[in-house]
Amino acid sequence: MDRRSFLKTGAAAAAGGAAAALAAPAVAQGSKNLVIVSTWPRDFPGLGVSAQRLAARIGQLSQGTLNVEYFAAGERVGAFDVFDEVASGNSQAYIAADYYWVGKHPGFAYFTAVPFGMTTVEWNAWIKFKGGQALWDKISGDFGLKALMCGATGTQAGGWFNKEIESADDLKGLKMRIPGLGGSVMSKLGVSTVSLPGGQIYENLVSGAIDATEWVGPYNDYFMKFYEAAKYYYTGGMHEPSAALAFGMNASWWGSLSDWEKAIIEAACMEEHAAQFEETMAKNGEYMAKLENDHGVQIRAFNDDVWDAFGEAAAEVYADTRAHSALATEIDDAFQVALREIGGMMAKFETTFVNQRNRVLGLA
Amino acid sequence: MDRRSFLKTGAAAAAGGAAAALAAPAVAQGSKNLVIVSTWPRDFPGLGVSAQRLAARIGQLSQGTLNVEYFAAGERVGAFDVFDEVASGNSQAYIAADYYWVGKHPGFAYFTAVPFGMTTVEWNAWIKFKGGQALWDKISGDFGLKALMCGATGTQAGGWFNKEIESADDLKGLKMRIPGLGGSVMSKLGVSTVSLPGGQIYENLVSGAIDATEWVGPYNDYFMKFYEAAKYYYTGGMHEPSAALAFGMNASWWGSLSDWEKAIIEAACMEEHAAQFEETMAKNGEYMAKLENDHGVQIRAFNDDVWDAFGEAAAEVYADTRAHSALATEIDDAFQVALREIGGMMAKFETTFVNQRNRVLGLA
Repeated sequence: MDRRSFLKTGAAAAAGGAAAALAAPAVAQGSKNLVIVSTWPRDFPGLGVSAQRLAARIGQLSQGTLNVEYFAAGERVGAFDVFDEVASGNSQAYIAADYYWVGKHPGFAYFTAVPFGMTTVEWNAWIKFKGGQALWDKISGDFGLKALMCGATGTQAGGWFNKEIESADDLKGLKMRIPGLGGSVMSKLGVSTVSLPGGQIYENLVSGAIDATEWVGPYNDYFMKFYEAAKYYYTGGMHEPSAALAFGMNASWWGSLSDWEKAIIEAACMEEHAAQFEETMAKNGEYMAKLENDHGVQIRAFNDDVWDAFGEAAAEVYADTRAHSALATEIDDAFQVALREIGGMMAKFETTFVNQRNRVLGLA
Repeated sequence: MDRRSFLKTGAAAAAGGAAAALAAPAVAQGSKNLVIVSTWPRDFPGLGVSAQRLAARIGQLSQGTLNVEYFAAGERVGAFDVFDEVASGNSQAYIAADYYWVGKHPGFAYFTAVPFGMTTVEWNAWIKFKGGQALWDKISGDFGLKALMCGATGTQAGGWFNKEIESADDLKGLKMRIPGLGGSVMSKLGVSTVSLPGGQIYENLVSGAIDATEWVGPYNDYFMKFYEAAKYYYTGGMHEPSAALAFGMNASWWGSLSDWEKAIIEAACMEEHAAQFEETMAKNGEYMAKLENDHGVQIRAFNDDVWDAFGEAAAEVYADTRAHSALATEIDDAFQVALREIGGMMAKFETTFVNQRNRVLGLA
């Protein structure tokens, strides 16, 4: 027992009968350290700010019962070291995109985004109400972790290129930063892919170590200054339609929490998951205009032929992924069923409306 | 001071120095009554269950500091009486769709859904990150209220009809339950419209008092048994693309809360706002299949001609609404700008992806 929890326990005991009965919850639980290690740089617009907001909210909602300390990438461990840091119990939680861990198990990709997969809303529905969380718990549990959704940026931009992509042939031989299964799709099409944390992409693009990169979308990408080295920016791509983030906790630590502490963390994560997505949607327009007007960025959309090539390559990637293990197959099975059911229905409602509205109003 | 808060205060005083310093937050705030009156029947699938889940979550997260009592429609006041009940301070909060109050001010429509308006995600982005909440606070404040988003059901189904709607002429002379500005659009097209709370629609449809109705979507509508009287069910309609719900609080009561209590309510509302939407998206498919397979419901989509007629009527409705008052104009101005900016960008990312994905996968 550390000095702080000893003092708390002593105070509760001293409070006597009436106080113990009425004030039990906050007093008796004592203070638990929650060290959060993040994959984002300090004060990084969009993702980093969102992660810091979540950390502060957990502290606020728990009234300090959860004693939160937040470390940005590199402040305690490197961005891609957060998984081992938390799995080992050195820290209690990471904030990251779980597809960074496809080297540990390709099934992790489904808990960030996969090519031709579910959008943020569809994915949220799967995780919370169609069995997705149980599968996430299973794969995370194999590594001593428990994850909750804690942020999303919606369908990501197709990426930054230094030339136009008018056919799949134009992709051949490019060196591109693109992680997860989206990277595997690009590899099938002859792209040499790498996974780099956010803080290292710019230097690689400017130096020519890579020719192309994807990151998030207009709001988040603006601050990365990729336009200095690549002028063609592609709208919604195939690779990350949901782009969800994970609050990955040490499973033993999570198991040690009270129901109330778990509820506080869940509510804070769900609130921030929604907020980060909505903030991105709210700000993309403003930053897209800056990219076009202030920096001469050329906006393009992939044509149908390129999309068809992506689709064929994605089918191969899914076959490879399923072949990895029984768990990978189980996750893919569940994901594909949910995609067709949830996505099929949203096509009849949200998408039918949006397409008609945009046609009638002449919007986009 | 009531007996409960007296006991709490007494206990805090009795706890003495050490306990007062360490255990201050939960003990010192005492217990505040939060009586919630709802527009949904008790245990009503979808909307009612979501409202009850929110009430329970506020109690849990606040550790009982907010002493929550929940009353379904008719248990304390009638569904459409909740506004006055809370504005007067008799109860502390309502759960409702704010467009039920267009008779008080047509600007309220924008805080549930308006024809050809924003989808749930677009609307959320506007409310939280593009100034929408400030306008909601303004119109609510004029009635002594403060509202937060607390649920959404996505783009609503076009409705239940007892014949096919193949042109705007087919709408003429119908009697339809459709509230808000969507109802005004239908009125422009010769429909006789009424607003009825959920619990009264079925009896009116079966008796022939109305010929048609809209409600929510497959999951919520299934339990209403409208298929007994109307076999044609239309996918995404023009009238409620967002369909957001409000946790409308007495503004003085909200002002009396501590920052922590406000944070608890905000987090619980944001969590449930997302959850209700996602639950609806997750369950629509299962219930659509039941409607078609078990009850012979015929699924239809409005054709382009009908959508064009909706669009022309909606333009007239917006002109009428803006003419009501300076505040109505201010809200519409802000809404239309946000729609074009946020919706225009989502068209380039989410919708571009969804349309290509659905084409490549042959989905829907």
